[in-house]
Amino acid sequence: MGNCQDSCKNFWCGPKNTNVRISLPAICFIWQIAMIALFAIFVRYDPEADAHWTEYMHQNNITSNIENDFYYRYPSFQDVHVMIFMGFGLLFTFLKRYSFGGVGFNFLISAFGLQWALLMQGWFHSLDSTDWTIKIGMKSLINADFCVAGCLIAFGACLGKVSPIQLMVMTLCGVSLFAVEEYVILNLIHAKDTGGSMVIHTFGGYYGLTISWILYRPNLHQSKRLRGSSYHSDVFAMIGTLFLWVHWPSFNSAIGNHGDGQHRAVINTYLSLAASVLTTFAVSSLSAKRGKLSMVHIQNATLAGGVAMGTAAEIMVSPYSALVVGVCSGIISTFGFVVLTPFMEKHMKIQDTCGIHNLHAMPGVLGGAVGAVTAAFASTSVYGQEGLMHAIMHGFVDRTMGMQAAHQAAGLCIAIISGIGGGAVVGVCCILRLPCWGDPEDENCFDDEVYWELPEDEESVPPVNQYNGQKADKQTDV
Amino acid sequence: MGNCQDSCKNFWCGPKNTNVRISLPAICFIWQIAMIALFAIFVRYDPEADAHWTEYMHQNNITSNIENDFYYRYPSFQDVHVMIFMGFGLLFTFLKRYSFGGVGFNFLISAFGLQWALLMQGWFHSLDSTDWTIKIGMKSLINADFCVAGCLIAFGACLGKVSPIQLMVMTLCGVSLFAVEEYVILNLIHAKDTGGSMVIHTFGGYYGLTISWILYRPNLHQSKRLRGSSYHSDVFAMIGTLFLWVHWPSFNSAIGNHGDGQHRAVINTYLSLAASVLTTFAVSSLSAKRGKLSMVHIQNATLAGGVAMGTAAEIMVSPYSALVVGVCSGIISTFGFVVLTPFMEKHMKIQDTCGIHNLHAMPGVLGGAVGAVTAAFASTSVYGQEGLMHAIMHGFVDRTMGMQAAHQAAGLCIAIISGIGGGAVVGVCCILRLPCWGDPEDENCFDDEVYWELPEDEESVPPVNQYNGQKADKQTDV
Amino acid sequence: MGNCQDSCKNFWCGPKNTNVRISLPAICFIWQIAMIALFAIFVRYDPEADAHWTEYMHQNNITSNIENDFYYRYPSFQDVHVMIFMGFGLLFTFLKRYSFGGVGFNFLISAFGLQWALLMQGWFHSLDSTDWTIKIGMKSLINADFCVAGCLIAFGACLGKVSPIQLMVMTLCGVSLFAVEEYVILNLIHAKDTGGSMVIHTFGGYYGLTISWILYRPNLHQSKRLRGSSYHSDVFAMIGTLFLWVHWPSFNSAIGNHGDGQHRAVINTYLSLAASVLTTFAVSSLSAKRGKLSMVHIQNATLAGGVAMGTAAEIMVSPYSALVVGVCSGIISTFGFVVLTPFMEKHMKIQDTCGIHNLHAMPGVLGGAVGAVTAAFASTSVYGQEGLMHAIMHGFVDRTMGMQAAHQAAGLCIAIISGIGGGAVVGVCCILRLPCWGDPEDENCFDDEVYWELPEDEESVPPVNQYNGQKADKQTDV
Repeated sequence: MGNCQDSCKNFWCGPKNTNVRISLPAICFIWQIAMIALFAIFVRYDPEADAHWTEYMHQNNITSNIENDFYYRYPSFQDVHVMIFMGFGLLFTFLKRYSFGGVGFNFLISAFGLQWALLMQGWFHSLDSTDWTIKIGMKSLINADFCVAGCLIAFGACLGKVSPIQLMVMTLCGVSLFAVEEYVILNLIHAKDTGGSMVIHTFGGYYGLTISWILYRPNLHQSKRLRGSSYHSDVFAMIGTLFLWVHWPSFNSAIGNHGDGQHRAVINTYLSLAASVLTTFAVSSLSAKRGKLSMVHIQNATLAGGVAMGTAAEIMVSPYSALVVGVCSGIISTFGFVVLTPFMEKHMKIQDTCGIHNLHAMPGVLGGAVGAVTAAFASTSVYGQEGLMHAIMHGFVDRTMGMQAAHQAAGLCIAIISGIGGGAVVGVCCILRLPCWGDPEDENCFDDEVYWELPEDEESVPPVNQYNGQKADKQTDV
Repeated sequence: MGNCQDSCKNFWCGPKNTNVRISLPAICFIWQIAMIALFAIFVRYDPEADAHWTEYMHQNNITSNIENDFYYRYPSFQDVHVMIFMGFGLLFTFLKRYSFGGVGFNFLISAFGLQWALLMQGWFHSLDSTDWTIKIGMKSLINADFCVAGCLIAFGACLGKVSPIQLMVMTLCGVSLFAVEEYVILNLIHAKDTGGSMVIHTFGGYYGLTISWILYRPNLHQSKRLRGSSYHSDVFAMIGTLFLWVHWPSFNSAIGNHGDGQHRAVINTYLSLAASVLTTFAVSSLSAKRGKLSMVHIQNATLAGGVAMGTAAEIMVSPYSALVVGVCSGIISTFGFVVLTPFMEKHMKIQDTCGIHNLHAMPGVLGGAVGAVTAAFASTSVYGQEGLMHAIMHGFVDRTMGMQAAHQAAGLCIAIISGIGGGAVVGVCCILRLPCWGDPEDENCFDDEVYWELPEDEESVPPVNQYNGQKADKQTDV
Repeated sequence: MGNCQDSCKNFWCGPKNTNVRISLPAICFIWQIAMIALFAIFVRYDPEADAHWTEYMHQNNITSNIENDFYYRYPSFQDVHVMIFMGFGLLFTFLKRYSFGGVGFNFLISAFGLQWALLMQGWFHSLDSTDWTIKIGMKSLINADFCVAGCLIAFGACLGKVSPIQLMVMTLCGVSLFAVEEYVILNLIHAKDTGGSMVIHTFGGYYGLTISWILYRPNLHQSKRLRGSSYHSDVFAMIGTLFLWVHWPSFNSAIGNHGDGQHRAVINTYLSLAASVLTTFAVSSLSAKRGKLSMVHIQNATLAGGVAMGTAAEIMVSPYSALVVGVCSGIISTFGFVVLTPFMEKHMKIQDTCGIHNLHAMPGVLGGAVGAVTAAFASTSVYGQEGLMHAIMHGFVDRTMGMQAAHQAAGLCIAIISGIGGGAVVGVCCILRLPCWGDPEDENCFDDEVYWELPEDEESVPPVNQYNGQKADKQTDV
């Protein structure tokens, strides 16, 4: 009885207990059963994925199976899927001793979040009012992956400092908030945001930064020894970067309009990304003693071009403007790593492990601004009447381009506000600081030891000198 | 002369000789020349890959190049190809000192097996009776990759304990057996098995386990020091896992019906996989002291949802059922790693290096059972008349759903029997235990040293430490 | 003032100075700004990526968005993109201490080169004479990636011995030369080269070898300790190999003819690659003491089948011939690694870090020869009248097959000559040997230390205990 009392006390206010043997399985099982129940009630196949498809084709004068949306979107979906699970996952392995946590927890919360995203986005965007069901198809899966991306960005800010339980709570709330802000920006305001600069990156970035601010650890320097990379963990992270970089054109075009829309989104993103690589290398070299390049910059800021091209991906910005966007985002992002991240940690109590402010938040805001500006300058001479409606206006014949630009700007503001506000609410109301969530002590942050069974020999072993040939040679003489 | 006699004696009954300098090149060259001869006699391009395609289009009223099966299946094929060579290959790198062997031998036997698979499957499934040729196209390549997958599963059970020669013999026989059981299950019994739960995973699993049982090594504990992972080899293996996980929807849909069939297979697999991730994390945490997660579970059991969804991938199981399948398979699979694998090794003389019983055999059987049950409950109200024929019945108008379910169950039994029986025949008749095959001694299992030239510094560095548990322990005492 | 003079003197003739803090950013920024200006003047969207697409469809009687070239080529493009950035990048990580440089500089020069390639190839191949603009679409992006591939091959020969500045100069000139030789071979001579055996691999190979010969370092043995792999760097490189191997069918089919052309190119490449894996393993084992396999061979020679199938990818060579091509290329390539590379380094002053002569130059020449031979034997009985025009003749009704074969052979010669000549001109005229380019001293070759900030614990080593914080802290105090 007394033991039980003690347990309860410890559970709420005791010293940090990182044993998640009860809490993690409990939340996984309860949540998964809830998902099954809700899916049974609400979720059905889209007509294009339903066995009645042949009849549907006849009714809608579709002459070939190849017109099934599956064939328009599946290759892009697969690329996005790779980005979420492999791109983000491997990018998070850069810490020398948190690779398991980076890739593993990324796996857990993505698989967890996408189920909830299918429901939330379904309720908000595509609830069939005749039978109150959600019809899921290829586009729903892509959108669920997008929604999860927002939460993974937030994970990046907190990497190594939170428990899997906290991450699942963050993801649960993040997905819910995401669905709402996305609904407001895309369906109410009718802003354009094909690649999610605003909806995904800006929101996710500020959501994560706010939570990281709330969970500020004044004594984080106690785990300073683990807060760096090792030679091979940097290569692993670089694989993640390349997955993201290579597939980003698919990310920005995956839910684009069929035909020229997806085609143009790919071209714009391809160019913007290429430009941001060059400026990242330039600024990285410029900012270091003896011009030495920093892997942190190369792993992250090279991707800023993709983020910043998100909103305007489908817009006729013209190829050279895509390069300009890439140039600016690469500079801003690398500059952020050099100057802002240390500043924010020192003076603003924001400990941003992966530098998501530089990779997602700032380039996301830039992308939103680019979207507003390019919308303002759109014209029928560039687009054609039909193309303009299709690409930007969502069929609003009565909107002027200036109005559309204003709506884009409004969308950006909403993304920022939702991110900060949502992060604050989640951080405070979910009382994420309570010790019951199983997060590690300050001196055990960034350590896989806390939540993972590690291979034995690596710990005990002195790996004397893997990379120092001469010394090794001497040693073998002994 | 006497020397020669000795050599011969050693060849057949002497101590194990792992020198494969003659035998490996010999088998590769002989086999490859045989392949060239057989391809010259039998293999031609499919009409859709033949230069007469334009004429073929006119004759068959095909109006556009995009109707070429290539565009329906190529993206899925590429994903499957990635799974076979990168997914399986990297998953097999998890051992600290057998990464070369894992990824390298996987490469060898896959490239070897797929050529033979094209012939065997061609003879059984698509021999053109007018000119006795096999016409290969996109679907043949996918099926060849599938066939190889079955043999790679068997490799998983024997990883580190067999020579490349033995692997090639296993693969040669495995592909032959595969083509036969596949012919019986799909073409004679007309069971449905889009993603191969029965044909690939159940067969491959039991085939490998039986061979592993025949090759039982009572003194395998002598190489215990190498039978574990290192921190970075676990991350490499995790990359393999993610490749498999992300592309599994392509695996289950690659040879599905055009249109709604492929679309639905992707949705079902996507959901099932997501659910199995959650239950894997849950059971893994529940089963360990202090709730610490095990990389072995995360690397393997998270994939069980894909295996178990194979047979029923195209069936209208409805999204929530896909989640249920994922939940069950994740639990079963993780449970297998925690309880069954040690039990089988101790009491049943089955040394299953990669735990394929948990990842492939059991979830495969589950998948076969799900296929039978869902077939039994199929109805025209859910599918529409046309859809039902298309998705399940293979055009058998006179079959009741109960009959189809019985045929599914029969297919599952045949897969299990072929796996065990085939493994026994191959293991015994090929006398895989003879020393002539070049397999390593018990104390050299799981060691790349045996078949690979290793980087110098890794060797010369007194690996006193890195790979030798006992000495390392002493060192840390100092 | 004197200081400035000294600087200038050092800049041109002093000892090697690897500080690129001014030069690298300068070249990146200047170049990127030039690109923006040129793109603004010349580059527009292709009609299929332009917002007027719907009107274009009406004008050209295109009935569906799926007929947009995007859907024919995007999956292949993504695979090619993965090959360039991840395949080549990771293949270059094989050196124990140059993984950052391998993957990082590959990233830099690819992103740099593809922008210039879009312009150069546009000017030569697709300049619209009405308004002097280049219209870029999916095919342009693929061709730009191809062009970059040629320069990455050259990078392989110089890996570890050059500065990023030199690489950018090499790439700039390489892309320019590439566009010219490609124009001559494909547009003037009208040779067929779908997968670029001649245009990409032969040219790139000889271009790189010539530069490597000009930059010969007699004292390179001083950095011998770093010119090898480590266990994990070999696995990283193997991931790169697998990316290349798996996606090579896309490389050879990406710009193929719609329909049967792309389909056939995939089948031929798939078979050729499989065969070269077997012969690589065979020759590798045959050439080593005790038959041990060499990772260098497996990482490289297994890909030769793809290179050698490039020119003839779309040709009706028949499946067994594809196997023969793979067999020969695997043997030649592995033989090259065993015999030729050491010979060339010792007697011909060519230091070929990655062995590109074996992987690209020789199999490329073989591929060109295969193309000429197969063109000579093409006939209307095999192709049909329409197919023959389509697949080989480029619509030249008056060419005999013998003439086409001669043109193919001429194309091959031009590729070789352009490579060697171009390399000589670039090497000598750009005076790449001057110390101003920032290349490392002989004893610092193959060392990331020179251009990269490395993780602390790896440098300061003794990383006595990479994962044991407390002890490490104590040690650093010492």
